[in-house]
Amino acid sequence: MKLPGSWKMLTVAVCVTLLGYLQAQELQGHVSIILLGATGDLAKKYLWQGLFQLYLDEAGKGHSFSFHGAALTAPKQGQELMTKALESLSCPQDVTPSRCVELKGQFLRLSQYRQLKTAEDYQTLSKDIEAQVQREGLREAGRIFYFSVPPFAYADIARNINSSCRPGPGAWLRVVLEKPFGHDHLSAQQLATELGSFFQEEEMYRVDHYLGKQVVAQILPFRDQNRQVLDGLWNRHHVERVEVIMKETVDAEGRTSFYEEYGVIRDTLQNHLTEILTLVAMELPPNVSSSEAVLRHKLQAFQALRGLQKGSAVLGQYQTYSGQVRRELQKPDSFHSLTPTFAAVLVHVDNLRWEGVPFILMSGKALDERVGYVRVLFKNRAFCVQSERHWASEQSQCLPRQIVFHIGHGELGHPAILVSRNLFRPSLPTQTWREVQDRPGLRLFGRPLSDYYAYSPVGEQDAYSILLSHIFHRRKESFITTENLLASWVFWTPLLDSLAREAPRLYPAGAESGHLLDLEFSGGQLFFSQQQPEQLVPGPGSAPRPSDFQVLRATYRESPLVSAWPEELISKLAEDIEATAVQAVRRFGKFHLALSGGSSPIALFQQLATGHFGFPWAHTHLWLADERCVPLSDPESNFQGLQAHLLQHVRVPYYNIHPMPVHLHQRLCAEEDQGAQTYAREISALVTNSSFDLVLLGMGTDGHTASLFPQSPAGLDGEQLVVLTESPFRPHQRMSLSLPLINRAKKVAVLVMGRRKREIAMLVSRVGHEPKKWPISGVLPRSGQLVWYMDFEAFLG
Amino acid sequence: MKLPGSWKMLTVAVCVTLLGYLQAQELQGHVSIILLGATGDLAKKYLWQGLFQLYLDEAGKGHSFSFHGAALTAPKQGQELMTKALESLSCPQDVTPSRCVELKGQFLRLSQYRQLKTAEDYQTLSKDIEAQVQREGLREAGRIFYFSVPPFAYADIARNINSSCRPGPGAWLRVVLEKPFGHDHLSAQQLATELGSFFQEEEMYRVDHYLGKQVVAQILPFRDQNRQVLDGLWNRHHVERVEVIMKETVDAEGRTSFYEEYGVIRDTLQNHLTEILTLVAMELPPNVSSSEAVLRHKLQAFQALRGLQKGSAVLGQYQTYSGQVRRELQKPDSFHSLTPTFAAVLVHVDNLRWEGVPFILMSGKALDERVGYVRVLFKNRAFCVQSERHWASEQSQCLPRQIVFHIGHGELGHPAILVSRNLFRPSLPTQTWREVQDRPGLRLFGRPLSDYYAYSPVGEQDAYSILLSHIFHRRKESFITTENLLASWVFWTPLLDSLAREAPRLYPAGAESGHLLDLEFSGGQLFFSQQQPEQLVPGPGSAPRPSDFQVLRATYRESPLVSAWPEELISKLAEDIEATAVQAVRRFGKFHLALSGGSSPIALFQQLATGHFGFPWAHTHLWLADERCVPLSDPESNFQGLQAHLLQHVRVPYYNIHPMPVHLHQRLCAEEDQGAQTYAREISALVTNSSFDLVLLGMGTDGHTASLFPQSPAGLDGEQLVVLTESPFRPHQRMSLSLPLINRAKKVAVLVMGRRKREIAMLVSRVGHEPKKWPISGVLPRSGQLVWYMDFEAFLG
Repeated sequence: MKLPGSWKMLTVAVCVTLLGYLQAQELQGHVSIILLGATGDLAKKYLWQGLFQLYLDEAGKGHSFSFHGAALTAPKQGQELMTKALESLSCPQDVTPSRCVELKGQFLRLSQYRQLKTAEDYQTLSKDIEAQVQREGLREAGRIFYFSVPPFAYADIARNINSSCRPGPGAWLRVVLEKPFGHDHLSAQQLATELGSFFQEEEMYRVDHYLGKQVVAQILPFRDQNRQVLDGLWNRHHVERVEVIMKETVDAEGRTSFYEEYGVIRDTLQNHLTEILTLVAMELPPNVSSSEAVLRHKLQAFQALRGLQKGSAVLGQYQTYSGQVRRELQKPDSFHSLTPTFAAVLVHVDNLRWEGVPFILMSGKALDERVGYVRVLFKNRAFCVQSERHWASEQSQCLPRQIVFHIGHGELGHPAILVSRNLFRPSLPTQTWREVQDRPGLRLFGRPLSDYYAYSPVGEQDAYSILLSHIFHRRKESFITTENLLASWVFWTPLLDSLAREAPRLYPAGAESGHLLDLEFSGGQLFFSQQQPEQLVPGPGSAPRPSDFQVLRATYRESPLVSAWPEELISKLAEDIEATAVQAVRRFGKFHLALSGGSSPIALFQQLATGHFGFPWAHTHLWLADERCVPLSDPESNFQGLQAHLLQHVRVPYYNIHPMPVHLHQRLCAEEDQGAQTYAREISALVTNSSFDLVLLGMGTDGHTASLFPQSPAGLDGEQLVVLTESPFRPHQRMSLSLPLINRAKKVAVLVMGRRKREIAMLVSRVGHEPKKWPISGVLPRSGQLVWYMDFEAFLG
Repeated sequence: MKLPGSWKMLTVAVCVTLLGYLQAQELQGHVSIILLGATGDLAKKYLWQGLFQLYLDEAGKGHSFSFHGAALTAPKQGQELMTKALESLSCPQDVTPSRCVELKGQFLRLSQYRQLKTAEDYQTLSKDIEAQVQREGLREAGRIFYFSVPPFAYADIARNINSSCRPGPGAWLRVVLEKPFGHDHLSAQQLATELGSFFQEEEMYRVDHYLGKQVVAQILPFRDQNRQVLDGLWNRHHVERVEVIMKETVDAEGRTSFYEEYGVIRDTLQNHLTEILTLVAMELPPNVSSSEAVLRHKLQAFQALRGLQKGSAVLGQYQTYSGQVRRELQKPDSFHSLTPTFAAVLVHVDNLRWEGVPFILMSGKALDERVGYVRVLFKNRAFCVQSERHWASEQSQCLPRQIVFHIGHGELGHPAILVSRNLFRPSLPTQTWREVQDRPGLRLFGRPLSDYYAYSPVGEQDAYSILLSHIFHRRKESFITTENLLASWVFWTPLLDSLAREAPRLYPAGAESGHLLDLEFSGGQLFFSQQQPEQLVPGPGSAPRPSDFQVLRATYRESPLVSAWPEELISKLAEDIEATAVQAVRRFGKFHLALSGGSSPIALFQQLATGHFGFPWAHTHLWLADERCVPLSDPESNFQGLQAHLLQHVRVPYYNIHPMPVHLHQRLCAEEDQGAQTYAREISALVTNSSFDLVLLGMGTDGHTASLFPQSPAGLDGEQLVVLTESPFRPHQRMSLSLPLINRAKKVAVLVMGRRKREIAMLVSRVGHEPKKWPISGVLPRSGQLVWYMDFEAFLG
């Protein structure tokens, strides 16, 4: 009785499945995939294999397919090349050889080559597809165009697709683009604008094949599946640092024509490593399978990246690179390339979750090993009472705690996710990930493999197969949107510009480099641990500077002058300010300091913020020497610079901070609001005799100081302590301490830096007391001291 | 010709030296050293030996000496005991046996026992000294009284010395005191006051014998001699943590009567470990041999210590301790001691140099090894490009970098100073310190000994010998001044009080404890890494609390009520505030939050400051619900609490912070200054419809809220948005948002915590709208939402 019943059920089930299959195929329709550049390297190596895999995975689920290989090659020759590529396709491991032959045969029958050159070619393609669909009684579901062609060909192809090869209404179009997506922000934007004139945003799939690598693709699911335990750990309180690393042993030989134009930052950091960084840093959306949410959060992560400066990066170049370039590009013997083949960049994510956590991105060629990984190292906040001999790896919180997304290669040799056993046992999908067997003797990231919960994919899958599947399933989160792409270039372009003429450090290939490329970071700067033994490439941006900076003492306008290289000058000024502050606090219990805005003091603020532990901030009152009539929150506001570079880093009590009241009653510097008078009253009330302990001024190229401008009488004499003035530069309205008030100070320091100031510095050295022409010439404290701080460029030119 | 000349010169030299010696002896005079408790353990073990050493070191340099052993024992018996002690004295290694006999003979002849009981005894002693000095034609230089007696005997002895045994004019008095110096701040102060009535501060030498240990005594000289390189390293930017550790293998058996009264914190942390901490943390004076400067800087270090809380410490007790106490002190079987034999404390030094750097102090008995050390671990700010296999210990900045002052014992077995080779080669006085030979296989602090520059003293010296020499040479920096002592007790007493009824975690002796005592720290709290497996000592302060906190939802005065245990309640409130903030910023671009002062919100501020990474602080405006009429910098100011616990930790732009203007024109809340009107105008200008997004209130035991008090009409109704009010509590003058303004808010949260609020919470639950009697009863937003947050103690009692 039982058997027949089961059989009946099975039959019904099969029929239902078949019915479903047929209905699905009817409903889901036909998909045409056009591979442009079908006979190129990428296509031969990965893309045809990926399309075959897609066919194997999806053909049974309701779609019908046709595959069109396309190139500029004439039909016959192209078909031959393509057939050759298709013959070397391989089946998954679990497929028998005979079944494999069968499957490959099916795929071959669905694939054909065609030459795509002219608009007519595209029209013909479109008509052929429509004819086929009609002939076979299908509905067209959509078309995928995969651009495996050089970027200069993009525009033409895009125009032809848009004008001649779009599917009819109800069917979708997807175009797949390969990097490079531009060379900098401007070119990326131009390319994006051009593509945007042909395609909708949702039609474009920009590939970064790293996003298809199994371990990279697992970062967000891992964060999601271990959300409960990671929630408390994934932040600046617990994470010590994040390393995003891609080391190669190969060099650029044979590819120098490409490499010379791009270099390592454009080749790997701007795309692969940055994408990985955002997967680690982004806020995890509640639903990680929502493309929209993932992409939005990723964009927010981009926007939180702190701007890079020259000092954020170091560059290297393997020693034989320039020779290779000379050979391959027929350059003269005198040619030295400045293209970096090694770069490390210190990135900070400026939000509350990651503030202060260093993200180190590093990539290079001709290094000692091939390996790619992201390592999240946790802070050691433990103290183990017993002697180290007794520590057990699963229990001791004193052993390193880390999560490593091991993308591939290295000593381990395969992709894996490692979680220190003293951290937690991670949850991973058991069908697709399995535990790695221990290999005694193998140490990874400072610990034996047995110290980790280690998982690797059950079957290794190629990145392109994964991405083709994601394209097919419209999983846009695995691709680079225009917004994300431009955000990435916004982030990288200023650094690329500032490094363009930097000479990279030369390194020998492989393990020979020793500690030469080791890095250290501090105060937002990244530098090589070892001093450069000698300057090997005489790059234009690397003129030698005296290694032992000298401070020159002289006089200027009959007052003491301190002159030095910029760094030393700022150090000296910061020291002098601290000494003045300490003395004032010792004598009077407080220190009244009036500061100017502008760019020169920023380095000073940073120096004071990070290097002066004895500075009596708690007893310091900060005043502004002048202010632009903009809201205090405006980036142009002098106060804003002070806040960003100094106040955020030291503990000045709120009530000791005295911004100028340029924004009263919701308007800017209105005479009736009496802002200047209010500030003057505040000064009179708090500063004894209205005599600041120290006023820091600058000097403009027109001889202005504070916001006292030539040919404008306000504030040059008279009784007023604080005045409204007019600047020749925008924003025109200013508030400023008056010259008489400045001259009541116990000490006035004038900081003048940069070659731009050379001319005025020379001029002012010769003029007398003519504040109406050069307000700076009126600065002479009645009973206080005046000191000039000029760097060598301003003073000596 | 030559020989006789040399001879002549030598003779002259000898004569000059002899003459100098005789003159010096005449000039420097006679020193009497009186050892009180001359037959006690400490005297027998260390002090006589130290005095003998002092004699050997100094007798040739111009002083003459006499040594008086004193105790309560009758003369004959005392003399016998003392002679026995003196016979076992040993000479330095380089002295021959025969010479040693000679030297001991000399010392014995200068030493005599005397009974010191009554005032007369002291008078007699004084007369005897004077007679001796006169008899031998000497000048009296001074007298040293060493109190090696129990503290209860101090007062009598001190009184007798002061009244009957002071040396005459021109000669100095020094009294040397041994700990314990009190049991807490009050008792230490009483003792200090009492001693202060007999002795001048400069006459007292309080001994902490750790300050005499060779490595400890070297900390400041080491910092001084390596000042140039340490200057840049010895701060929060470079130091990861500091560990001050004293582990013992012995237990308290035989000493439980002492130990029961003191426990590990009073026994070692309050004194030894704290002294070491200050040597590491203090600002280094320009001249480290100036006692005055060292002591002043040390005091400043004490003053910079952040106050300890219960959560700053963890306690342990070895399992057999209670049994030992029961046996030794005849306690009943039911007795369980709460005295800790193990303690670890997380200390923060709140100045710019050390802010955020954890100092871990740890000491315990019956542990797995005997060792004492201070370890300064530096931050790892390096990234090493090559695979770890290639790292070299002197060059790799990726290997641990640390400086260890190894006080003694441990696997190394002797005192030493260790500096990681990748840090710098330290400078040490070559005459007294020498490099330690490598011992292959020996690992210290995670690295082989060969990774360190390691130095140890050429000759080991006992701490008491060193201290006796310092007393003789008036090097007061090696002793505890009254100010420093009281500063230490000010620091420790609140913790001792708050821990007095805490049950320590029980641990098995020796290596058995495994990871049971391992510690972690976070957010200023220190805790055991492992959950307590079971509560073994049912201490009074450790009533079990539900491990999965529950949040109760109900209604109160017809509005939603959230009730929970305090911690959970604060978490929930913080989450709700963040959600409200995120929503407001999403909808309106900003979030207006008005906060109350008082103690309950402090935990909330801390929670918001440390746990809420998504909080949109950059778009949040902070207002005060009420303020006391004190300067904003006054510790009583509500704003000050907000600044200390929240603003210092998050990035709220300066111009989004709106303290109440209670201090205009240098006076407090003067009607004429129109502070309330100014604040009202500011609110009207910035807050749409003057409707705050969220107002956080509390409730006083009298039913007041914000600063709206019962029986005081101001602010309960009418048009005014902000009012001046009168509080029944000091300071009486207040500024407050008015009830009508509060009721315009979109949301009002009332936080009520603690058993003290139980009664008013019950009362207010029953009353209607009677704001004149209970202002809180008038809180009912017109179109917004009211939510009550009460902890279980306030709600359920």
